[in-house]
Amino acid sequence: MPDEVDRSVRTVHVPLGERAYDILIGHGLIESAGERLAQAFPGRRFGIVTDMEVAQAQLPRLTSALQAAGIGHEVVVVPAGEASKSLDRLGDVLDGLLSARLERGDLVVALGGGVIGDLAGFAAAITRRGMDFVQMPTSLLAQVDSSVGGKTGINAPQGKNLIGAFHQPRLVLADLDALETLPPRQFAAGYAEIVKYGLIDDEGFFFWLEENRANIFSGGPARAEAIARACAAKTRFVLADEKETGVRALLNLGHTFGHALEKVTGYSDRLLHGEGVAIGMVLAHRFSARLGLAPSQDGVRITRHLEAAGLPTEIGQIAGDKLPVEPMMDAIAQDKKVVRGKLTFILTRGIGQAFVERNVDPEAVRAFLEEMSA
Amino acid sequence: MPDEVDRSVRTVHVPLGERAYDILIGHGLIESAGERLAQAFPGRRFGIVTDMEVAQAQLPRLTSALQAAGIGHEVVVVPAGEASKSLDRLGDVLDGLLSARLERGDLVVALGGGVIGDLAGFAAAITRRGMDFVQMPTSLLAQVDSSVGGKTGINAPQGKNLIGAFHQPRLVLADLDALETLPPRQFAAGYAEIVKYGLIDDEGFFFWLEENRANIFSGGPARAEAIARACAAKTRFVLADEKETGVRALLNLGHTFGHALEKVTGYSDRLLHGEGVAIGMVLAHRFSARLGLAPSQDGVRITRHLEAAGLPTEIGQIAGDKLPVEPMMDAIAQDKKVVRGKLTFILTRGIGQAFVERNVDPEAVRAFLEEMSA
Ligand SMILES: NC(=O)c1ccc[n+]([C@@H]2O[C@H](COP(=O)([O-])OP(=O)(O)OC[C@H]3O[C@@H](n4cnc5c(N)ncnc54)[C@H](O)[C@@H]3O)[C@@H](O)[C@H]2O)c1
Ligand SMILES: NC(=O)c1ccc[n+]([C@@H]2O[C@H](COP(=O)([O-])OP(=O)(O)OC[C@H]3O[C@@H](n4cnc5c(N)ncnc54)[C@H](O)[C@@H]3O)[C@@H](O)[C@H]2O)c1
Ligand SMILES: [Zn+2]
Ligand SMILES: [Zn+2]
Repeated sequence: MPDEVDRSVRTVHVPLGERAYDILIGHGLIESAGERLAQAFPGRRFGIVTDMEVAQAQLPRLTSALQAAGIGHEVVVVPAGEASKSLDRLGDVLDGLLSARLERGDLVVALGGGVIGDLAGFAAAITRRGMDFVQMPTSLLAQVDSSVGGKTGINAPQGKNLIGAFHQPRLVLADLDALETLPPRQFAAGYAEIVKYGLIDDEGFFFWLEENRANIFSGGPARAEAIARACAAKTRFVLADEKETGVRALLNLGHTFGHALEKVTGYSDRLLHGEGVAIGMVLAHRFSARLGLAPSQDGVRITRHLEAAGLPTEIGQIAGDKLPVEPMMDAIAQDKKVVRGKLTFILTRGIGQAFVERNVDPEAVRAFLEEMSA
Repeated sequence: MPDEVDRSVRTVHVPLGERAYDILIGHGLIESAGERLAQAFPGRRFGIVTDMEVAQAQLPRLTSALQAAGIGHEVVVVPAGEASKSLDRLGDVLDGLLSARLERGDLVVALGGGVIGDLAGFAAAITRRGMDFVQMPTSLLAQVDSSVGGKTGINAPQGKNLIGAFHQPRLVLADLDALETLPPRQFAAGYAEIVKYGLIDDEGFFFWLEENRANIFSGGPARAEAIARACAAKTRFVLADEKETGVRALLNLGHTFGHALEKVTGYSDRLLHGEGVAIGMVLAHRFSARLGLAPSQDGVRITRHLEAAGLPTEIGQIAGDKLPVEPMMDAIAQDKKVVRGKLTFILTRGIGQAFVERNVDPEAVRAFLEEMSA
């Protein structure tokens, strides 16, 4: 942490009518959570859900803060990792919350990365037909992406995130200090999602990231600004389209290729989600350039930026055996339902100019992937 | 079935804005479901969820109707009985729906009693973050109570219905012919919930039931009217209070005592839910009379009516060992959270005049139960 820590708190307001809430971004938010929660939710009890790694790295800060504020709380811990987004672990969380005798007026706190946010948020959605919950995202990806928008859920054997609910938090506390214990590879993966918001529709933000990347990675003041701008961007899309029927689809820039890569690498340590998105965004730009839609220098520029952030940008950079194209095509076809022989993709006319294209020829995608995998 | 079957269909409209829907009550609704669903939901596929007993008694009617209408469908069958409202059976249903490759635009059909309505409705609520669903209630209780109001869910080891969601159906088809295969004891249990609506706030309906009970039980034209009036009554309460914060509580008339009796009999065949409600409603009236709130003849009149319907009205009529009062008191205290030493109960000033009383002395309840169990 730098010597002079910025104590200011940035707020992104999410104006969803009755369900409006604030996203607070700043240092020391876990330490001040006791006072804040006591004031916002007087007399309520809290069921904290977290994973084993975050329990080790961050939980003591939160439990002392709640203790100091005299707030009743219980803790439910699940193993770290994507495998915890399962029906079995959901059962454990529900059991923990109900055994703690939390009432419908009490709150669930999700302390962790996107896995915990999705799992605990979903548990909150269905315990006593809907309990309030607070997101305390501790990974960069969770702070800029998964904690915003109200999507919660778990995975099924048939695919990721197939079981879940829309359930908005009552408050999001994104503590910058939590990121100090986040593994650097996870930090870089979350950064890919920040870059995404620039690439979708905010060229100025992408240029700003080019200038401020080093400061963001070293924990300087630009970090808070990057996170706040990313949250604001996601909020804009969510508001435009709360139930994801239209423009919210743009948030999937880089994700169709990315998901395919995650799938063929077995959702393993070989490729983190954000790493798949980084490669996917580069591919989306190159493919758009190939179709004559976007200038190819934009792809080069994005590649350079992501590389500098320590992210992979080529399929060939993924550790392990060469990845076959056919299973990627299967994954793409499953992900984005082929309609009358055509695929839907987020393509682009350049940095900050992404759009939804429903008329993509699967054969063009296959040929492109063959080349990119060569 | 009587010779002259009434082919008219009664409709109760539930005006919930964007989520408005109709409850249709009539003969042959399962046979005509193919046309109706094809028209209301063109091009969609259907995942039918049912239990083994209903699969035997009613499913063939539905699958032939869908086949005849050329509607794609898959069937998921769970064991009959309350035990299927579990996380494990929910997992089976989710697995069945997802393996059938139902898309978010497709629909779930709940064909069965309240267990299936609650389980399948909840599965629909959380599959792909919310699929549409159609209720086809086949028990009397489901037709007049559980299929109306949008509550869905399952049980937890900690208690009934602790896990769930509010999720309104798109359509309710209450086929009177389905009741032909319902065991008579189940029919009577469902009837107790019909009587409840009269006792809460509609004295005229209770008098009408007194006149028409025999016709309702024999499957005459009064049956459809009783069901439609009960649905309309429940709809009124649901609309007044969709998320159950106020007047909807009146629907719990007889249920605090009833739940306590169900709990001490282990939710077994010793006492069906509706039977517990029958005894509970009599107790609520007697207890109110004891407190000087209601005329004691009303209790007598209700007892006579429920007895004539083949329902139990006394704790002592429950088969098996004498039930101890202390565990009943524990169940009551858990059900209705003691606030500053006082219990909340639905009491009454007479038939059709129920109200919420938050100031009931637990000792008075205990003394009353001691006497009623003697
Ligand atoms: N709901 C949404 O809108 C949405 C959006 C994007 C992603 N997601 C989901 O988010 C998940 C990915 O989130 P993620 O990348 O945060 O994964 P994650 O929650 O698994 O966290 C990554 C790893 O970092 C550890 N960790 C997190 N914070 C830490 C900290 N402060 N100190 C030390 N270790 C820490 C975790 O224990 C874990 O091992 C996926 O399941 C994805 O589907 C959801
Ligand atoms: N969601 C709500 O608002 C609400 C309201 C009241 C009750 N409930 C729930 O409803 C459930 C009780 O419903 P129920 O009494 O319908 O129980 P149920 O679904 O178990 O049905 C009772 C029995 O009758 C059988 N059956 C149903 N229809 C039949 C038919 N037409 N022919 C032959 N057999 C048939 C079933 O297989 C079962 O064995 C409970 O779980 C209760 O919590 C929910
Ligand atoms: Zn992503
Ligand atoms: Zn009931």
